[in-house]
Amino acid sequence: MISKKIIQIAQLSGVGLAGYYVGIKNNHEETAKTIQVMPGLPIFGTVSAAAPFSDGSTFVTAKDRVSQIMKYGFPGLDHVRSYDDFVLSYDRRTRVPHWVFEHITKDHVKKNDEIDRSKCDFAADESIHPFFRSQNSDYKGSGFDRGHMAAAGNHRLAQKDVAQTFYLTNIAPQVGEGFNRHAWNRLEKHVRKLTKVYDHVFCCTGPLYLPRKESDGKSYVKYQVIGANTVAVPTHFFKVVVGEAPDGSLHMESYVMPNQKIPDETPVANFMVPPETVEKAAGLLFFDKIHRSKLSSINGRKV
Amino acid sequence: MISKKIIQIAQLSGVGLAGYYVGIKNNHEETAKTIQVMPGLPIFGTVSAAAPFSDGSTFVTAKDRVSQIMKYGFPGLDHVRSYDDFVLSYDRRTRVPHWVFEHITKDHVKKNDEIDRSKCDFAADESIHPFFRSQNSDYKGSGFDRGHMAAAGNHRLAQKDVAQTFYLTNIAPQVGEGFNRHAWNRLEKHVRKLTKVYDHVFCCTGPLYLPRKESDGKSYVKYQVIGANTVAVPTHFFKVVVGEAPDGSLHMESYVMPNQKIPDETPVANFMVPPETVEKAAGLLFFDKIHRSKLSSINGRKV
Repeated sequence: MISKKIIQIAQLSGVGLAGYYVGIKNNHEETAKTIQVMPGLPIFGTVSAAAPFSDGSTFVTAKDRVSQIMKYGFPGLDHVRSYDDFVLSYDRRTRVPHWVFEHITKDHVKKNDEIDRSKCDFAADESIHPFFRSQNSDYKGSGFDRGHMAAAGNHRLAQKDVAQTFYLTNIAPQVGEGFNRHAWNRLEKHVRKLTKVYDHVFCCTGPLYLPRKESDGKSYVKYQVIGANTVAVPTHFFKVVVGEAPDGSLHMESYVMPNQKIPDETPVANFMVPPETVEKAAGLLFFDKIHRSKLSSINGRKV
Repeated sequence: MISKKIIQIAQLSGVGLAGYYVGIKNNHEETAKTIQVMPGLPIFGTVSAAAPFSDGSTFVTAKDRVSQIMKYGFPGLDHVRSYDDFVLSYDRRTRVPHWVFEHITKDHVKKNDEIDRSKCDFAADESIHPFFRSQNSDYKGSGFDRGHMAAAGNHRLAQKDVAQTFYLTNIAPQVGEGFNRHAWNRLEKHVRKLTKVYDHVFCCTGPLYLPRKESDGKSYVKYQVIGANTVAVPTHFFKVVVGEAPDGSLHMESYVMPNQKIPDETPVANFMVPPETVEKAAGLLFFDKIHRSKLSSINGRKV
């Protein structure tokens, strides 16, 4: 009877389980092997209340979509939520995501007259326990923008897809002028342009809380928190991207930008950093299922 | 074939799976129900390399012990590791635990001449990925003590049990004089004394990073990081404890102490705070399987 229960729950939480099991491994090879034997499993166990599966056809599409987005592995497994066109891990302590994963193609980013971003409203995600749920009121009057992690402009296949990027689980406080509306936006546009070069672009975005040496010679992490729910204002944000070229080769780009006004003329390439630096700072492993030696390039340099 | 693989992995990671599944629920009742149908499952999926199961007899004991320690639910499920006599969740970003769980009885804390704490060495836990693993060198010269979360004095049944509390996964930087060696030690002794009143004491311990309002009117989280692996120095520590009385009644105590020199005469009761306050600050839910209304007392007051 117990084994029957296990099977039921295993079927409910397939990818989540594989991910959880993988989460305790620290060997890249074993990780790759474990996920490969479980392709396309449903991900009910990690699905947000925000994206209910009501009928069979939606179900099949949704589970395949999650497998597609997460093809190269979960960076971490803390409170994973999947939406129709992106997947994220929520940090209950900071009330912003740990990471948000997207799979982007030409079709996802091209102009679509049926999509109207102005009809989208920022909204709290009710699937998060109220103790840890960020609210619009937390951001109001804070001076910070509600900055998208999965960019709205990467999800133009359906109105519901772009609408879901406005859940506050996908949002973090960003400096508006000179950052969210400018430098960060240029980085988002750069990622969209990669779909002209690569058939498939996988993009992982998230916050960082980087230490700084102070005058006493010691290093400190310091970040503001806003609103009644003390939503963390990250000091930096990262994007780690992998592109699949038509010849099958894989190319990684890895960026860190400070959450501050950045001069307009600064090229995005100035913000490239080794992916390992981001991994250590974030406490995450990116594209764990690809051996780094299998990448053709990292930040434009041959591996 | 796929379903066979699921079953295998489900058997490997039983409690971990149940926990993961539960982790995405935010309804206390459902949580209780889900775990109740899966009593005493093995927890291989979450077991640390530090506690290998080599033979059948150890296996049975170990899985039962984990079920016993975690009887009232997992506070969170990020990188869970179980040792022979305690269970913890590791925070790869801060390189200290999110929480550490213990089940303590009279037998665990009584004097045992076969136990020699002086033979124990602090050691890095090799089961943590090297990017996120804290080392003795991080603490050396930092001015901070290597402070136990699961107290060494709570694990006196076997030498291996006390030895495992010296893994750095169970350690966080604590102010030595006036805190780790004094006020915090008094709180640990208080918890041990609870075994005289309660048959079973469940103790969850961990770090907090609390915001503080600065002169600009804004709130900031600020904490030092030490060593090459930037190990976080928490601003505060918590202990949330549940005691099972001989009459079956349940009693909760919840403490937060600042990581600083605390005057010697300060009674531990001064550090009692509502458990919800700790939960919101830590991003965790404690004793999730007990409805708060089922507790007979919280912090000495009738519920």
